[in-house]
Amino acid sequence: MDINALRTANPEHWSKAAAIRALTLDAVHAANSGHSGMPMGMADVATVLFEKHLKFDATAPNWPDRDRFILSAGHGSMLLYSLLHLTGYADMPIEEIKNFRQWGARTAGHPEYGHASGIETTTGPLGQGLSNAIGFAIAEEIQRARFGKKVVDHHTYVIAGDGCLMEGISQEAIGLAGRHQLGKLIVLWDNNNITIDGTVELSDRTNQAMRFKAAGWQVLEIDGHDPQAIDEALTKAKTGKKPTMIACKTHIALGHAAQDTSKGHGALTDPEQLAAAKQIYGWTTGPFVVPEDIKAAWEAIGARGAIARQDWENRLASLSERRRNEFSRAYARDVPKRFAATIRALKRQNSEAAPKVATRKSSEMVLEVINPIMSETVGGSADLTGSNNTKTGDMGVFDTDNRKGRYIYYGIREHGMAAAMNGMALHGGIRPYGGTFMCFTDYARPSMRLAALMKIPTVFVMTHDSIGLGEDGPTHQPVEHLAISRATPNTWVFRPADTVETAEAWELALSSKQTPSVLSLTRQSLPTVRLEHKQRNLSEQGAYVLADTVRKRQVILIATGSEVSIALEARDILEGQGIGTRVVSMPCMELFAEQDEAYRRKVLPAGPVRVGIEAAVRQGWDRWLLGERGREAKSAFIGMDSFGASAPAEELFEKFGITVEATVAKVKELLG
Amino acid sequence: MDINALRTANPEHWSKAAAIRALTLDAVHAANSGHSGMPMGMADVATVLFEKHLKFDATAPNWPDRDRFILSAGHGSMLLYSLLHLTGYADMPIEEIKNFRQWGARTAGHPEYGHASGIETTTGPLGQGLSNAIGFAIAEEIQRARFGKKVVDHHTYVIAGDGCLMEGISQEAIGLAGRHQLGKLIVLWDNNNITIDGTVELSDRTNQAMRFKAAGWQVLEIDGHDPQAIDEALTKAKTGKKPTMIACKTHIALGHAAQDTSKGHGALTDPEQLAAAKQIYGWTTGPFVVPEDIKAAWEAIGARGAIARQDWENRLASLSERRRNEFSRAYARDVPKRFAATIRALKRQNSEAAPKVATRKSSEMVLEVINPIMSETVGGSADLTGSNNTKTGDMGVFDTDNRKGRYIYYGIREHGMAAAMNGMALHGGIRPYGGTFMCFTDYARPSMRLAALMKIPTVFVMTHDSIGLGEDGPTHQPVEHLAISRATPNTWVFRPADTVETAEAWELALSSKQTPSVLSLTRQSLPTVRLEHKQRNLSEQGAYVLADTVRKRQVILIATGSEVSIALEARDILEGQGIGTRVVSMPCMELFAEQDEAYRRKVLPAGPVRVGIEAAVRQGWDRWLLGERGREAKSAFIGMDSFGASAPAEELFEKFGITVEATVAKVKELLG
Repeated sequence: MDINALRTANPEHWSKAAAIRALTLDAVHAANSGHSGMPMGMADVATVLFEKHLKFDATAPNWPDRDRFILSAGHGSMLLYSLLHLTGYADMPIEEIKNFRQWGARTAGHPEYGHASGIETTTGPLGQGLSNAIGFAIAEEIQRARFGKKVVDHHTYVIAGDGCLMEGISQEAIGLAGRHQLGKLIVLWDNNNITIDGTVELSDRTNQAMRFKAAGWQVLEIDGHDPQAIDEALTKAKTGKKPTMIACKTHIALGHAAQDTSKGHGALTDPEQLAAAKQIYGWTTGPFVVPEDIKAAWEAIGARGAIARQDWENRLASLSERRRNEFSRAYARDVPKRFAATIRALKRQNSEAAPKVATRKSSEMVLEVINPIMSETVGGSADLTGSNNTKTGDMGVFDTDNRKGRYIYYGIREHGMAAAMNGMALHGGIRPYGGTFMCFTDYARPSMRLAALMKIPTVFVMTHDSIGLGEDGPTHQPVEHLAISRATPNTWVFRPADTVETAEAWELALSSKQTPSVLSLTRQSLPTVRLEHKQRNLSEQGAYVLADTVRKRQVILIATGSEVSIALEARDILEGQGIGTRVVSMPCMELFAEQDEAYRRKVLPAGPVRVGIEAAVRQGWDRWLLGERGREAKSAFIGMDSFGASAPAEELFEKFGITVEATVAKVKELLG
Repeated sequence: MDINALRTANPEHWSKAAAIRALTLDAVHAANSGHSGMPMGMADVATVLFEKHLKFDATAPNWPDRDRFILSAGHGSMLLYSLLHLTGYADMPIEEIKNFRQWGARTAGHPEYGHASGIETTTGPLGQGLSNAIGFAIAEEIQRARFGKKVVDHHTYVIAGDGCLMEGISQEAIGLAGRHQLGKLIVLWDNNNITIDGTVELSDRTNQAMRFKAAGWQVLEIDGHDPQAIDEALTKAKTGKKPTMIACKTHIALGHAAQDTSKGHGALTDPEQLAAAKQIYGWTTGPFVVPEDIKAAWEAIGARGAIARQDWENRLASLSERRRNEFSRAYARDVPKRFAATIRALKRQNSEAAPKVATRKSSEMVLEVINPIMSETVGGSADLTGSNNTKTGDMGVFDTDNRKGRYIYYGIREHGMAAAMNGMALHGGIRPYGGTFMCFTDYARPSMRLAALMKIPTVFVMTHDSIGLGEDGPTHQPVEHLAISRATPNTWVFRPADTVETAEAWELALSSKQTPSVLSLTRQSLPTVRLEHKQRNLSEQGAYVLADTVRKRQVILIATGSEVSIALEARDILEGQGIGTRVVSMPCMELFAEQDEAYRRKVLPAGPVRVGIEAAVRQGWDRWLLGERGREAKSAFIGMDSFGASAPAEELFEKFGITVEATVAKVKELLG
């Protein structure tokens, strides 16, 4: 690598890119940890992208029509932080760079959404940013179709590394992007041939260009250190009808002693090597000091979009008030005015009609009334549309010839779906939801966790939520998945008992601004248990007394979802035998845990025996059975302590002892 | 589709294939559920494979050198069950077919490993079988290199559907297979262009042939209903140096009214349509009746391998006794004779030397002594070799020119790694283990669950197991992952406190015959806490008294892994203040839960206040704090109730309050 030739050929470009490299070296040195090589390798690509192509305005980082820049190779976070600092984002002063990876800094080890403007998504777990990007690009297409090109017309740029492309989720993402010809999606692959274990060839010899072409992409291959080549490729990429992958041949840790080695991937902190690299760059200022002219050049780049942004504001203002309000409302994640009334009407109607339906069907009934008034919802399923009941008549199917379509056939791609949904939520203006079988939350886990970590209200519609799935057997029967979702911070897990609770769950999920929701829904039909209409959303408190004792309170049965009706039937028998029994429905443990103690005590007072009923593992239940004034000797759990089996659902409930009879027997045993 | 032409062209082939189709229709009709279309579509391919290529002997289903047949598209389970019944597997009589999907039947909705001979792996969750197959093929290569071609020389055949190829894990699998030129792996793609939601084009337009070629595969494309073409393709596939994908163009639900539709994917139970299909097939016998001549032809196929198998037995017998014993021992999953003594010696040495090391390093120390005496171990990492410490000096690296190598660079493919490891364990003769960061158990979850469901002892080495990971931040810091693994039935989650407990955990993990293990290991250094050598494996009981009270017992501190030393330091302070304090180390909750009540009571008696300490979420701990004679008012938990943050590890423990001081303060608060 003749760096001198690079410097001489494009001195102005070089010095701007060198600023990224120098800041990266300084920040990693100060933190004594981090990843130096990737920002140093991709500095040229990023510089050309920001200087000549990316539509943004550093003074208005949340401008809805900005281009999105996603650093999927999130370990190279200093690339992003350097760019944000250099172009003048107000919340990325040099102090943040100096504070890289320290407590309270915006500059976390990996870019975290919400920490600073310009971080469009949280990355680090590989493949996620690339897969989010598919959602960003779909969101742009849908909104452009809806609001018109004059207010929505932007690109999504991604920098992805070898790790992103090796993760399986990348195949799901590029398959979807190719299928939908997301022409405004441009992926810059940092083709540096280095992973942590060594050269890429150690573990992979995939012809990535051929692979992307097979998925329907345009592929361009360039020298990632040649600013003209980068510029030309980006120009060409923007004109394509297909998504474009630009393979950028780069040298990791360019100019450092560790260049082109796996050591270069990590933290380069040796002071002498650091000094030597800076000398090669022609960088003479001290740590964290960017020469004024170079900073000014970068700030000009940061201001480059100001006029375009102002023009856009004017164009937005020219929309009708109604459309402008719709646009803003969706971005603010506010529900439409008629939302609460619509939910209430559905609740009333179902408390009166008391249908016996599966909660996956209840969910469809809710969506049938909500989707028409909430045009920002975008639904989908991982090839289980007719099973997840996620598609309503009004949505239309998103396709190359119907960009207004709000339903997406994600294919057999649970992980890619979850990541794409996160991308839509992050893009703004869209409320994504998508379905699969509850058991396959496993496939989507990494993205579900990131929704929680990023505080975005993605909705995961998980049907067939227990052994009630029946004959398909234990590979398809969740037993641990409620516990898994509940173990995850900032996640609401709703397991509604009937159509009314399902409506309440959807109301909370679609009103949420910062918390993702998992809707755990049955395959099998359930009776309506909420027969008395309440205006209030009772699920909002997480748990509530569904049926109280007639006689002296001796028993509390706590149940969720399909097991609430078992609790009610057991109560009838027990009350009939003179044993006062309360039934608590607990559709959302997380919300109940947030209630004050007075309310919790009212629902779960000390004294009575307690039996929890849920067709899943006990983990997570002890809090309500042994804690919250409960006692070990006076409580029990009826559920699963193994995987399920393949047989008709009714038989499985019988064989695994999740029945009215077992509940009554257990209560009597506890009463002694 | 001119079925009559197919029938006439190859009448004998046709009737054999028709037997599969008829049994499938009958079984699904009787069960009133299941998936008819796939077995009907792939019957021709399967018939030719079993008749002319698959090396097997129905009377010796576990013959180690048999070819392996994996039905990755597991929903088409009736294809497999039909083949096993027709070829005369003793445990697949017609009663099992009649009992399809019923309680207690071997014929579960999806094929389940262990239910019947000939089911090589559990499939249904898509992409898993295909990815297991990579492990089967690697296991064959390693064993062939080690024991010689005369005792190990077989193929791995896979039938995969569109769903398998759409799941991201498939890309990880085919990338690995291509990289390692697994020439004895042959994938038959059921290219029927139908998924549950409709035609494949709804969600995917990937050129699969190009995609597989990009990954280094040989690709053949054939008419999946032409027996000559199938035969020729299989013959060619077997001679290739690369893995082969044969794209078999088929018609789902061939010959049924639902042919070529997504309805055909599911349960075809309409009696008239069923009768019509049988008529088209020329099938005249009643339900579940296979004409004698056709059954006899199939049984001849089932007996075809008997001579080859006998020859193999003779060749095996010609091995030296030592080698024969090694071969058998590995297949029996028995540890070598010196195993226990080796572990004991290491324990003694470390109790005496009392090093301060990270448990990921302890794990390496164990592997350094075990791998040389346990030649069936095959290690690896998902591109974190130097971080997971999974590679020992003696292993050699598995590669195209070193098939004896026992270390695999899996690349950034956690999911593919986990599935491949399962495949090796299932193949037999190999004890696979592999590492990644604990946080990325998320990526591997579907395969980790299947290891538990299949009862195979795969070992998942999960390092960087808490906020102790430090600066990389919350995307890389597990907080819910211990709870997730513990929620999964039949899984041992070990969180050892030092080198001695790490050795004990490995001893249990590598002795396990039916339970997978998760080893949760630290990034950060820990002091040795087991300073007194014990011959016995104390971790085997899951929890034990590590340091008992000197004074009157007022407090029990229960901790795992990196928090055990916090508990010990807190105990020193409390005892110093006259407060009798016991420390219980709890490296494996699952094993402790299995102990009898007497032992559990001895470790956790009623009375003292209890504090649990673990740098993770509380879920799973209430059982030990509130239950097992514990009381709500007298117990507390010190751990995480949110995601982590990016900062140096020591600071994070401080900020999140997981410290000696916080423990002492909490105890005093509880003592009142």
